[in-house]
Amino acid sequence: MTVYFPEVKDTVLYEGPGSKNPLAFKWYDRKKEVMGKTMEQHLRFAVAYWHTLKNDGGDPFGAPAVSRKWNEPSDPMDRARATCDAAFEFFTKLSAPYYCFHDRDLSPEGDSFKASCDNLEKMVAHAKTLQKETGVKLLWGTANLFSHPRYLHGAGTNPDFHVFAYAAAQVKHAIAATKELGGENYVFWGGREGYETLLNTRLKQEQEQMAAFFHLCVDYAKEIGFTGQFLIEPKPKEPTKHQYDFDASTVLNFLRTYDLYDHFKLNLEANHATLAGHTFEHELAVAGAAGKLGSIDVNRGDLLLGWDTDQFPTDLYSTAFAMLEVLQTGGIGSGGLNFDSKVRRPSCDSVDLFYGHIGGMDTFARGLLIAAAIIEDGVLEQFKQERYSPWQGSLPQSVMDGQGSLALCEKFVLEKGEPTVKSGRQEYLENVINSFI
Amino acid sequence: MTVYFPEVKDTVLYEGPGSKNPLAFKWYDRKKEVMGKTMEQHLRFAVAYWHTLKNDGGDPFGAPAVSRKWNEPSDPMDRARATCDAAFEFFTKLSAPYYCFHDRDLSPEGDSFKASCDNLEKMVAHAKTLQKETGVKLLWGTANLFSHPRYLHGAGTNPDFHVFAYAAAQVKHAIAATKELGGENYVFWGGREGYETLLNTRLKQEQEQMAAFFHLCVDYAKEIGFTGQFLIEPKPKEPTKHQYDFDASTVLNFLRTYDLYDHFKLNLEANHATLAGHTFEHELAVAGAAGKLGSIDVNRGDLLLGWDTDQFPTDLYSTAFAMLEVLQTGGIGSGGLNFDSKVRRPSCDSVDLFYGHIGGMDTFARGLLIAAAIIEDGVLEQFKQERYSPWQGSLPQSVMDGQGSLALCEKFVLEKGEPTVKSGRQEYLENVINSFI
Amino acid sequence: MTVYFPEVKDTVLYEGPGSKNPLAFKWYDRKKEVMGKTMEQHLRFAVAYWHTLKNDGGDPFGAPAVSRKWNEPSDPMDRARATCDAAFEFFTKLSAPYYCFHDRDLSPEGDSFKASCDNLEKMVAHAKTLQKETGVKLLWGTANLFSHPRYLHGAGTNPDFHVFAYAAAQVKHAIAATKELGGENYVFWGGREGYETLLNTRLKQEQEQMAAFFHLCVDYAKEIGFTGQFLIEPKPKEPTKHQYDFDASTVLNFLRTYDLYDHFKLNLEANHATLAGHTFEHELAVAGAAGKLGSIDVNRGDLLLGWDTDQFPTDLYSTAFAMLEVLQTGGIGSGGLNFDSKVRRPSCDSVDLFYGHIGGMDTFARGLLIAAAIIEDGVLEQFKQERYSPWQGSLPQSVMDGQGSLALCEKFVLEKGEPTVKSGRQEYLENVINSFI
Amino acid sequence: MTVYFPEVKDTVLYEGPGSKNPLAFKWYDRKKEVMGKTMEQHLRFAVAYWHTLKNDGGDPFGAPAVSRKWNEPSDPMDRARATCDAAFEFFTKLSAPYYCFHDRDLSPEGDSFKASCDNLEKMVAHAKTLQKETGVKLLWGTANLFSHPRYLHGAGTNPDFHVFAYAAAQVKHAIAATKELGGENYVFWGGREGYETLLNTRLKQEQEQMAAFFHLCVDYAKEIGFTGQFLIEPKPKEPTKHQYDFDASTVLNFLRTYDLYDHFKLNLEANHATLAGHTFEHELAVAGAAGKLGSIDVNRGDLLLGWDTDQFPTDLYSTAFAMLEVLQTGGIGSGGLNFDSKVRRPSCDSVDLFYGHIGGMDTFARGLLIAAAIIEDGVLEQFKQERYSPWQGSLPQSVMDGQGSLALCEKFVLEKGEPTVKSGRQEYLENVINSFI
Repeated sequence: MTVYFPEVKDTVLYEGPGSKNPLAFKWYDRKKEVMGKTMEQHLRFAVAYWHTLKNDGGDPFGAPAVSRKWNEPSDPMDRARATCDAAFEFFTKLSAPYYCFHDRDLSPEGDSFKASCDNLEKMVAHAKTLQKETGVKLLWGTANLFSHPRYLHGAGTNPDFHVFAYAAAQVKHAIAATKELGGENYVFWGGREGYETLLNTRLKQEQEQMAAFFHLCVDYAKEIGFTGQFLIEPKPKEPTKHQYDFDASTVLNFLRTYDLYDHFKLNLEANHATLAGHTFEHELAVAGAAGKLGSIDVNRGDLLLGWDTDQFPTDLYSTAFAMLEVLQTGGIGSGGLNFDSKVRRPSCDSVDLFYGHIGGMDTFARGLLIAAAIIEDGVLEQFKQERYSPWQGSLPQSVMDGQGSLALCEKFVLEKGEPTVKSGRQEYLENVINSFI
Repeated sequence: MTVYFPEVKDTVLYEGPGSKNPLAFKWYDRKKEVMGKTMEQHLRFAVAYWHTLKNDGGDPFGAPAVSRKWNEPSDPMDRARATCDAAFEFFTKLSAPYYCFHDRDLSPEGDSFKASCDNLEKMVAHAKTLQKETGVKLLWGTANLFSHPRYLHGAGTNPDFHVFAYAAAQVKHAIAATKELGGENYVFWGGREGYETLLNTRLKQEQEQMAAFFHLCVDYAKEIGFTGQFLIEPKPKEPTKHQYDFDASTVLNFLRTYDLYDHFKLNLEANHATLAGHTFEHELAVAGAAGKLGSIDVNRGDLLLGWDTDQFPTDLYSTAFAMLEVLQTGGIGSGGLNFDSKVRRPSCDSVDLFYGHIGGMDTFARGLLIAAAIIEDGVLEQFKQERYSPWQGSLPQSVMDGQGSLALCEKFVLEKGEPTVKSGRQEYLENVINSFI
Repeated sequence: MTVYFPEVKDTVLYEGPGSKNPLAFKWYDRKKEVMGKTMEQHLRFAVAYWHTLKNDGGDPFGAPAVSRKWNEPSDPMDRARATCDAAFEFFTKLSAPYYCFHDRDLSPEGDSFKASCDNLEKMVAHAKTLQKETGVKLLWGTANLFSHPRYLHGAGTNPDFHVFAYAAAQVKHAIAATKELGGENYVFWGGREGYETLLNTRLKQEQEQMAAFFHLCVDYAKEIGFTGQFLIEPKPKEPTKHQYDFDASTVLNFLRTYDLYDHFKLNLEANHATLAGHTFEHELAVAGAAGKLGSIDVNRGDLLLGWDTDQFPTDLYSTAFAMLEVLQTGGIGSGGLNFDSKVRRPSCDSVDLFYGHIGGMDTFARGLLIAAAIIEDGVLEQFKQERYSPWQGSLPQSVMDGQGSLALCEKFVLEKGEPTVKSGRQEYLENVINSFI
Repeated sequence: MTVYFPEVKDTVLYEGPGSKNPLAFKWYDRKKEVMGKTMEQHLRFAVAYWHTLKNDGGDPFGAPAVSRKWNEPSDPMDRARATCDAAFEFFTKLSAPYYCFHDRDLSPEGDSFKASCDNLEKMVAHAKTLQKETGVKLLWGTANLFSHPRYLHGAGTNPDFHVFAYAAAQVKHAIAATKELGGENYVFWGGREGYETLLNTRLKQEQEQMAAFFHLCVDYAKEIGFTGQFLIEPKPKEPTKHQYDFDASTVLNFLRTYDLYDHFKLNLEANHATLAGHTFEHELAVAGAAGKLGSIDVNRGDLLLGWDTDQFPTDLYSTAFAMLEVLQTGGIGSGGLNFDSKVRRPSCDSVDLFYGHIGGMDTFARGLLIAAAIIEDGVLEQFKQERYSPWQGSLPQSVMDGQGSLALCEKFVLEKGEPTVKSGRQEYLENVINSFI
């Protein structure tokens, strides 16, 4: 059997913080218990098929730059099988429990829609066998409705119904494939669902089209008995000038507007959050507050660069704050932490894929430990409890219950006079956080 | 009677595009008819009391830099009266039909809540007289719930109920003042309603507080019979690290979540849109699509600077695109175009206030003419009609009506094959726009 | 002979502002005289071979999306010849007097360095014939030292001398090709001359390498008698995380540091300026002040997007301000206005290439007319003259001549007291500008 | 004697990482040796008089929000003395060895230039006494040439020579005051030395004025025997739309252009670097490569906010990378680490000033330890040595020495063929960094 990653002999193992072995985990000890669950249960890591297996190292100014053994077969389906074999070798050697894919990652576009579907079917069977053999599971599947030129003006939001229908047909098979592979979620990311210019766009109609598209999907899932969670992944822009799923709040508003709220949760990505002008933890908090945190695409952006750099997460602050939100919202549920991350173009060896993932997994494991320590210490929670304590009185409570009035508030003020201002203690709290790192 | 703006003898007049008089309108011809209404009816310009009368030219690195005759009286109430007199002289000389104010622009904070309310009452009476004398009307009123240190941690979202109550009491009087002055709208801008750090913040509770606050206001308006429109003004950040009313979609989601949707529309500001990562016309289109365009704060930001520069609008593209959205959504209704714009700090003469407003009014008048010409020509609309024409068929219509299915879409694709891709013609359309300028 | 652009029968003609023909110029009337020169002489437009002929419509999330007749031949050299024929048909039909190219646009990479050089030589001969036939000239040539994976870590700044040598050898042939084709300039854009991370980078050594690289080029040009102007094109980032040629000032500092100042001027691009946090006119002014404005890449960015969108210039303000700087610095000399602009991906027809260029040429022609009108009117210059007039005195002059002292200044202040502050009149001046549009 | 900071009884002490005392150092152990010097010698911390003593908590949307005991005296000079006493109490309790000030921080503007100078003289005497009593030293002084309205259009770059002269006179006294207090450096930050709009600006003349201004200062320092280092502090924008001292490279180019290179070094600020689109460590590396790293303003920006937030540095990555550059360039010399940092507006208690500084000092102490550990381990340096090893050969060396030619490089390539591409190992190196945190 072909070995695609000879640089890693066996499984990447946990060796502890003192290890100097770059191919060992220093913090991710998958069976270690943290707040009542193992690290593996908390983090539910997934490898992204597209970045890890399919990324060719091209960029807007550069040609493909990596050569992978699994790309050597000239026949597209042979290449797809080799890629899939390499993928499962990678998942296994990394001890990653999950993976995620787009339909067109797994299998190539054929000469016709029918041929593409046949390709997909065959590759799903292939992957299913490998899942069984390795125990690796599918976190989520999705359809690539943005790369092919037919989606130049969008998929569900396309001005041409023919393209809408094509996307609908494609997504039908992608959902079916996800079901067949036991996928726990299905993700919608609308890379081209937005506009390049308002000059040629009917914004409202396009959003209605999108809603219709989602309703068809909800109906179909019901019909075939797919019980995985449907997730929408917000992104503000890129490739499109402006995407309709700008951020968590925008998506929630859309879902409420079009009677889709009960059927979807959010798949949030760190780099998409920052491109939208939010911190990652903000988006997690917004989703958490709405009970809509479905899954996470972990990576890191570069705030001095204005595009989706999709770097591996290596910043401990970011992972600790993210895990704080996740733990406080009760965990990631049937979602997981998918590495929507790619190695830099100059990291052109396949071993770099291991370095990237190992670093990301260790940084999140450490983030989990930090977040758990903060929660168990209680210092932040105590501070907040004290800070919001004035809301415990009867007037405040009646205001919250809708029984108050401006007049009652005025009466309160006329009696009590000017409020005393208290410090928010941001610097103190930031020092506290550093004491946990 | 004291004259505060001697540099303008009488009313600023329309002299046409050929005029070289910097104190004349070149495009704003208020009685000129455009698409069935006068320019004045379309644009409903308002002067912002705060920037125009109260801005002292200070900035984060600089001391107050302007000296105005109306600031000379040492007694706060005398100063307030002089300021109000100057304001109405300015409105009148500019032929601005409306103005907007915060409670604390009009009248000074007193030694106690009661004293502040008394001050406000007196100044409202003063302003009412001047409104009657001049015919100038109030577009909207609002309460300043962000400048005073008591609002350090927010007003409605404050962790201390005492501050919430203070804000509630203050807003009660501001709504009453707006009603007394015949204000057609009342605006909420939550400059401190957000957070500096999530480390000390309960995001969900704060949003619930805000919702409770708005419900009290809705109840009060009903109680006193204030029939003006309630408006929320989104802004993503500044002064707060992150504001809850990030953009139009975020506010709409909030209103839907907390059962406030029917009671509010949006007051959109150009510079707030760009700070949130949107074009101004995008935000107008989002509000228009939801039927929630209430009013507009006209200004312009500097996209190379990361703060709210609030410059006077002088870019014809921006005003033309804005007016296109306004005209297409059926006009600005009971809202208007409020100049939330300030002259640059080095523009330290009071005549600069006239230059700023005249330029802004002319640029919007010209934007209106351009937008109307585009609409009357029909070229854009025709292009869109053709572009979206494939949605006229029976299958597309049934999909939009919720009668379709992924399977029917697949059947369609299997019959029709690959869609033909058409160009979006962005460059052509941009050239078309330039032919109207 | 194959016709590649049948949608344009003959040459695009000037039809004046009233024309509704999308394939005619409305403002670019090439023989029209403006301030003593024809429009053609002022603007010296060039078409960029890469965007116009070679762009395949791919983007980071999308596959190639355009199909061009000239890409049909399967043999690379046949394709190169067809592309070159199409190019000259395009230049001619557009009446563009110039074009610009990278070596690898014109001819394909071969199996060896030698083979690549042979390809280039053949294509140069082909292009030379077409230049003679059509009268179209070469504004500048350059070498593509950023697309091929060998340049993953830079060309001149590569840690591996082997790559440096390769780049040096490649640039040798590119300069020779430019000379052979009568190119009036040669451009260096260091797309990969920067770093991805300082963790693996010796910044100082890499800059010394770059300087050595440039010195070799200067020597070679002298040796072969290439008398065209050498130009460096600044860009702050993308594709590299941080490029050494960040902006005009950074490049000037580099040239001064490494004794290269006399041998280079700048090729400034609008979108690169904005990515660096400057307006386009700022960069032009910096270069103009140093007498180093060599040539211009005209396009437009989208300030709400963080990457090089390279859109066609259609904003009249930007082109008018750019032409103001160009006219004030005495014109573009042996440089020109190269359209480093590409149609949007959804603009997938070849006719869109015409729309893009026509719009760009018209917008710059109009910008030229506006700038000339402003200069001829004298209003801005007069304002500045008055504003800086206090520097006419003898003390100010002696200070500028290095004869003053802090003590003399203090003496002046003790006599004259507090200065009077005058308004900068920004709003007035912005209104003035609008009166010219 | 009045105690201004009763919340801190005595000196803040080092208690080690395990301490839970928020008013103790956990990492800053000033006498601890690191790479041959004590922490105190490495870090040379300074407190910024303006943020710590003079910041009133106002912001563009908010009134002053803090009340300090030292602001209670109503007479300006009494207040200045109380402030100075409080300052030295703070410095001492914090064990900060240095402070920095603007002339107008220390003493108030008087009714005339003469009166302002007298005020300054008196306060210098007062501060001198306190320096002697406490042992606290002056890291640098500077003149505030940006707050007063007379500097609306700049100081050295003002179109009015009268203002230039005023600034010159003011800076004369500020340099003298710095000398009198034994200041080791003198800093120039040109907050208003730039433009608001090019429409009214002669960019080249203004830069020549600035150069003349600096020459006068150099002459004066020589004249009075001030031997401290002159430093320029770059900032790209804010308050001005565009500042001439955009970043390190821009300043170096300016210094070279106007024959000032030998007389100045750079004072680099973290938040100014990020506003200019650079990382802090990039700017340090640029200055280090030029031998021009003079001193540092330590703080941290918020990359999602577009203004100078001047937050206390609490990010370990940023401080570790900064200290790596500092150590590699041979230390900070006669400069130091000045906290140009302010507590957030809602941190309104004076104890928050301690939390801010303690956190900043600890984070930099820890950054120093991390950087030293990385250097002592040698892992990064070894990686670079290997990476750049191909430059050791004789051809590469002759190229660097100016003896090569493009032809020799071509010969090399024809012999050696295609270079082999090696990975840059960014992910591996980022993991290595995390192993030191």
